[in-house]
Amino acid sequence: MPQSGLLDRIRVVLSRTSHPGNIGAAARAMKTMGLTRLVLVAPESFPDPVADARASGALDVLHAARVVPTLADALEGTVMSAALTARRRELSVPLALPREAAPELVRHAQAGEVALVFGTESSGLSNEDVALCTLPVTIPANPEYSSLNLASAVQLLCYELRLAALVPELPEAPSEAARFEDIEGFYAHLEEVMRAAEFYDPATSKRLLPRVRRLFGRTRLERDEINILRGLLAALQRKLD
Amino acid sequence: MPQSGLLDRIRVVLSRTSHPGNIGAAARAMKTMGLTRLVLVAPESFPDPVADARASGALDVLHAARVVPTLADALEGTVMSAALTARRRELSVPLALPREAAPELVRHAQAGEVALVFGTESSGLSNEDVALCTLPVTIPANPEYSSLNLASAVQLLCYELRLAALVPELPEAPSEAARFEDIEGFYAHLEEVMRAAEFYDPATSKRLLPRVRRLFGRTRLERDEINILRGLLAALQRKLD
Repeated sequence: MPQSGLLDRIRVVLSRTSHPGNIGAAARAMKTMGLTRLVLVAPESFPDPVADARASGALDVLHAARVVPTLADALEGTVMSAALTARRRELSVPLALPREAAPELVRHAQAGEVALVFGTESSGLSNEDVALCTLPVTIPANPEYSSLNLASAVQLLCYELRLAALVPELPEAPSEAARFEDIEGFYAHLEEVMRAAEFYDPATSKRLLPRVRRLFGRTRLERDEINILRGLLAALQRKLD
Repeated sequence: MPQSGLLDRIRVVLSRTSHPGNIGAAARAMKTMGLTRLVLVAPESFPDPVADARASGALDVLHAARVVPTLADALEGTVMSAALTARRRELSVPLALPREAAPELVRHAQAGEVALVFGTESSGLSNEDVALCTLPVTIPANPEYSSLNLASAVQLLCYELRLAALVPELPEAPSEAARFEDIEGFYAHLEEVMRAAEFYDPATSKRLLPRVRRLFGRTRLERDEINILRGLLAALQRKLD
């Protein structure tokens, strides 16, 4: 299965959401991360024009949402489910962080359907709801104010899922890095101009060239940047002569 | 400095936000991750009761927001700034992912103030605004629908910053990072010398200055490197006169 296909096996379940705007905003958050399967457990108002407005370009995800009466219905057929919950629970269940839970969910998505479950805006998931799920997950928020907006929490978890599912695509190839000999040619040219400007005297300023190398070394020069720099040095030399 | 104190050195800058609700929601997103310093560049409407309503329990962060006329004002005194931007740009700037950028910002927060900059809801940041910042950052979103809600983007970046700030051990503080105004002074000086050398003609070479900014932006100049570079430029000017 292609890795992006794994995201199609992840259901986002919103349980008893009060405000339809949050359902729309959650659909948008999902789609920006490539998730499409929304399940609503007994929402207070759905469908709703406020949800449509907040969904922005994710109306397709919103309108394809499945509405079910109970969380057990929403979880039917899943091989794993993660429940978002606040840090303290009566049950001393070990809580996973999103960064730990996401690869677990993606790994299980290779075996079947998985779910990510969010509770109400005011009180989250009940202990009974959390107990229905495989893995409780908590966002490491500010202990003095940990109340994320529902759609923001959906955004954050879906982001972690996307990263976990698409890992090998992440690093970008460096474009057109300059070669060792090009960079050495630039340093030699720069040294000439610094001498001509009487800015650099090898007898007295031993530390200048190493500092310059350190500066440009950090930047990982590209080939056409070398061309720009050497073009400037050549123009300066013509004026200095 | 305790690591949570580093979050107090991070400014969240919202440039020309259209909808006050998003400003309030951004304040809430910040506070859930322990960030408190909000700067607004020419917001369309602020203060605004809609912003207050969406801020929920983060009215303190919202009401302490500083309003400034330009992005340059917002960046004054910073030693590093990250600009959130979409993937494709005219310049093939190497874009950092949030997970790469966050530890960089936190590392620089040990040396001074840093900023995280977000553009408008409809069109993001202009190329000029991105060029004012040190590091362009992109969220690895669904290429078919990458339009995150502004507050969701703030939530996601602040989450990465919190994780980066609270990891047990931070790498070494950068020594003496140069400030925004020092770096802008260097660019202005360099431009003068490039004109004097007849290497740069603003009428014909529109791409040169952005390329130069991109090159030096990547290197995160230090204060005494600015001194070296400006010393060289001054020496060249004496010879060219």
